[in-house]
Amino acid sequence: MNYISDPQAIETRSMEIIAAHLAGLKLTDQAVKVYSRIIHAAGDPDYAKIISIHPDAIAAGMQALKQGQSIYCDVEMVRTGINKRRLAEFGGEAHCLIADPGIAEQAKQAGITRSMAAMRAFAGKLDGAVLAIGNAPTALFEVIKIMQESQLRPALIVGVPVGFVGAAESKEYLVRNSPVPYITVHGNKGGSPIAASAINAMLYML
Amino acid sequence: MNYISDPQAIETRSMEIIAAHLAGLKLTDQAVKVYSRIIHAAGDPDYAKIISIHPDAIAAGMQALKQGQSIYCDVEMVRTGINKRRLAEFGGEAHCLIADPGIAEQAKQAGITRSMAAMRAFAGKLDGAVLAIGNAPTALFEVIKIMQESQLRPALIVGVPVGFVGAAESKEYLVRNSPVPYITVHGNKGGSPIAASAINAMLYML
Repeated sequence: MNYISDPQAIETRSMEIIAAHLAGLKLTDQAVKVYSRIIHAAGDPDYAKIISIHPDAIAAGMQALKQGQSIYCDVEMVRTGINKRRLAEFGGEAHCLIADPGIAEQAKQAGITRSMAAMRAFAGKLDGAVLAIGNAPTALFEVIKIMQESQLRPALIVGVPVGFVGAAESKEYLVRNSPVPYITVHGNKGGSPIAASAINAMLYML
Repeated sequence: MNYISDPQAIETRSMEIIAAHLAGLKLTDQAVKVYSRIIHAAGDPDYAKIISIHPDAIAAGMQALKQGQSIYCDVEMVRTGINKRRLAEFGGEAHCLIADPGIAEQAKQAGITRSMAAMRAFAGKLDGAVLAIGNAPTALFEVIKIMQESQLRPALIVGVPVGFVGAAESKEYLVRNSPVPYITVHGNKGGSPIAASAINAMLYML
């Protein structure tokens, strides 16, 4: 069995194939990079039809990351997927509290999800930061609620919860109500690789 | 904004919605659980059409996990997504070498991917174990090669690399050539959440 085993050749050929799926879309060069990384991570060109990027989102995210702002994640898989070595070059860190025993206890007592409790625990730190929510609709709803009830304003929300209960609704709610720029996708799809790849696309453009 | 924030209610409702997408498929009760977890993880009912499970795969995987066999992963995101607390209840661990500095050096010198080098480093431990390959086609090709050149036989290969260069080919090659049971998907889709959710579905049935 012959196959390409050179990492750079795989990357280059992948991006060529993905470019064909973006033909006809009116995208900035930077948006092409974000779309491509997402489609690459999912192996699914249909993302080209459902990705939604606020006009200021990529610039805002790149500026925050360049300034060393940290990234707050809803689940460990998102944090794992982010290129933390690249992030650290600018001084930023990726944080996640979902596995924190204190958070689990708070969530249990309040009858809410652990990701909601984690977002509440982050709240004071979110101003100017980047949010990467790849799993939990409840985390995304909670972040929007925090913004509505405070002056806290993240630089960018990458909000791509996945699933059939609340995920699509949370993302539509983000598009309609977010006071800050966002990167999202419409419908049920999404997930940790989608969130992480959108972040990495920005890191690789810095 | 009203939404369901009780984790158990979200889970129950999600599985009801997914069940409707599986209507008409002839699946065992155990296969339904694996399909459902995968579709849940991707937010994508189209997986119902592309998942391919060897008839012995779920039983073989569950038996190995119950006996405390470890899981060898190609990337950290797969390892992160596996419910390691549940795995540890049976004595198993989840391993990944992709971030190991020695592996990076070996890969660089050999001009291969880090995941290939990681699989070579695992080789002696793979007999009887469970493999979870969610990202790299090259890792899956390498594992098949190791089996072809040795008597090493994992209990189960969950092989769902994602992408446009080699991913589909690696999975077809697995279906045609694997001497051991497999769980895979046809085409370009796949990824870490797909691998982890297939593993977790088995862990939750134990």
